[in-house]
Amino acid sequence: MLRGMVANAHGRVPEVALTFSESDVPAPSHAERARTLVAQQSTGSLATLALDPIGYPYASFITFSLLGHAPIFLISRLAEHTRNLSADPRASLLVHETGKADPLANGRVTLVGQAGKLPRTDRAAREAYLTTHPGAAYYADYEDFDFWSLQVKAVRYIGGYGRMSWIDADAFAGAVADPLASAAPRILEHMNQDHAAALKSYALAFTQAFDAEQATMTAIDRHGFDMTVRTRRGVGPARVSFDVPLTGAEDARPALVALLRAAEAKLAKAQ
Amino acid sequence: MLRGMVANAHGRVPEVALTFSESDVPAPSHAERARTLVAQQSTGSLATLALDPIGYPYASFITFSLLGHAPIFLISRLAEHTRNLSADPRASLLVHETGKADPLANGRVTLVGQAGKLPRTDRAAREAYLTTHPGAAYYADYEDFDFWSLQVKAVRYIGGYGRMSWIDADAFAGAVADPLASAAPRILEHMNQDHAAALKSYALAFTQAFDAEQATMTAIDRHGFDMTVRTRRGVGPARVSFDVPLTGAEDARPALVALLRAAEAKLAKAQ
Repeated sequence: MLRGMVANAHGRVPEVALTFSESDVPAPSHAERARTLVAQQSTGSLATLALDPIGYPYASFITFSLLGHAPIFLISRLAEHTRNLSADPRASLLVHETGKADPLANGRVTLVGQAGKLPRTDRAAREAYLTTHPGAAYYADYEDFDFWSLQVKAVRYIGGYGRMSWIDADAFAGAVADPLASAAPRILEHMNQDHAAALKSYALAFTQAFDAEQATMTAIDRHGFDMTVRTRRGVGPARVSFDVPLTGAEDARPALVALLRAAEAKLAKAQ
Repeated sequence: MLRGMVANAHGRVPEVALTFSESDVPAPSHAERARTLVAQQSTGSLATLALDPIGYPYASFITFSLLGHAPIFLISRLAEHTRNLSADPRASLLVHETGKADPLANGRVTLVGQAGKLPRTDRAAREAYLTTHPGAAYYADYEDFDFWSLQVKAVRYIGGYGRMSWIDADAFAGAVADPLASAAPRILEHMNQDHAAALKSYALAFTQAFDAEQATMTAIDRHGFDMTVRTRRGVGPARVSFDVPLTGAEDARPALVALLRAAEAKLAKAQ
C-alpha cells in the first residue's frame, strides 16, 4: 500500500497524516490549473524532432505568449528549432513554475501538438506576443523571423507531488486561467502577515480542524483557498471555498471579509 | 550586412559599437562555457520521443546531476519520460541559466544523446545524484526508481545573443567546468562595490580604452574577466586575461592584486 502510494506520486508519499477539508470543496480542475500555470509564464522548453542528429528529440529554450489557449512563438528561420519544425511540425512545450525550494514540488505542464507558421497578416498573434515580450518589437518584422503557434492536441499536467493527469485538448481550450493568479502571492502575504485570527476562524468554522491553533494560507484561486492548519492532533491541509467563484482579484477582499463574518457567526452560535 | 548580423544572432544586433579588448585575449572555449553552465545547474528539460501521441517530441521537467560530463537522473518507471526512454533511448537535456532580465540573454545548453538505465550496483551515479539532490535519498531505493545517464553525442551551446555553436561530444567531455563559476557572483559584487579604481586601472592599462572613465566587471573565469567600460567615446566591453589560468576561486584575489600592481606600474611608466 505504501509502495502503491509512492508509485502514484512518482516517488513521494505526501507527508499528510491529517487532512481537514470537508468533502467536495470546490477546487480548480486540472485543466484550469494547467491553463492558469501556462498563462502565468512566458518562457518554456520546446521539444522538436531534430534534423541532425536526425530523429532525436531536441529541447530548446523559447519565449512565448498565449493567444487564447495557443502558445505563440517568434522564431528565426536560422534557429535549430525552426528548421526542425519546418521539416516536422510535431512539438511540445514544457512550462514550469519556479519558486519552491524543492524543484519537483513546482507545477509543470507539457502542451503537445502541431506547430504552424502564421501568416504575416496575423495581427492577433503578433499583438499577443509583443504585449508579453515588448523587447522583441524591433526584430519582429525582420525577414527571417516568423510567428508560429502550437495547436494543442494533448496536455500533461503535473501539479507537484501526487497531482497529475492527462488533459484533453478540448478541456484545456475550455478552461479559464484563474483570474486571481497574479494577485495570489500578494493576497497570501497579506493574509498571513495581518490576519492570523481570521485564518484560524476559517479553519475552526469551515473545516474539520475543530481544534485549530494556527492556520497559514498557502494558495488562493477563484473557487476558494488552501491552508496548512496546526492543531493539537498535528498539522494538515484544509481547503475552504467561496460561496460563488470570484471573477477577479478585486473580489477577494469582500469575499474574505464576508467569509469571516459567516465564520464568526457560526462559531458564536456553536458556543 | 546588418541583416546578416541579425540573422547570426537569431534576431538581435549586439548593441556594441565599441569593443576595447586587445586581440586574442584568452577566454573559455564554447565547450568549456557549456560544461560550466551545465555543472552550475541541477534542473532541466528532458526531451524524449512520446509513446502517446506516438512519435511526438515530449518535454518534461527533470532534476539531474553531472557525473563527469554525463547527466544522471533518478526517475520512476511510471513517469512518462521513463516509459518513453524505455521504448527509445534517444533524448536531449536542455539546461539554462536564469537571472538576466531578458530571458534570451541567458545562456543555455542542449545535450543530445542516448539515455541508458544504470545497474543498481552503480554507486558513483547514485552518489553524484544524491550529493546534488539529498532529498531524493529516501526514495532512491524504491523498486520503481532507477538511475539513468545520458551518453552525450552532441552539444548545442547558446551563450546569449550572437554566441552559439555545436560542440562535439569529445570536446564537451574534455572540457573543464570553470573552477571560479560558483564564486563569480560574489567576486563581481565585491570588485564592483569596493574596487572601482582597480577596475578603471585594468581598463586603462590592458585594453584599448585609453580614455576609460569607469569600468564594471561583468564576468570572471579562470582565464580572465570581462568588463563594461565607459569612455568619452562611448561604452563597450573589454576583456583582460590572467597571466596563467587560475586553478580555483582562492587564486582570484592574488591574481587580481598582482594584475593591479602590473597595471599601476605600466600606467606610471607611460606617464
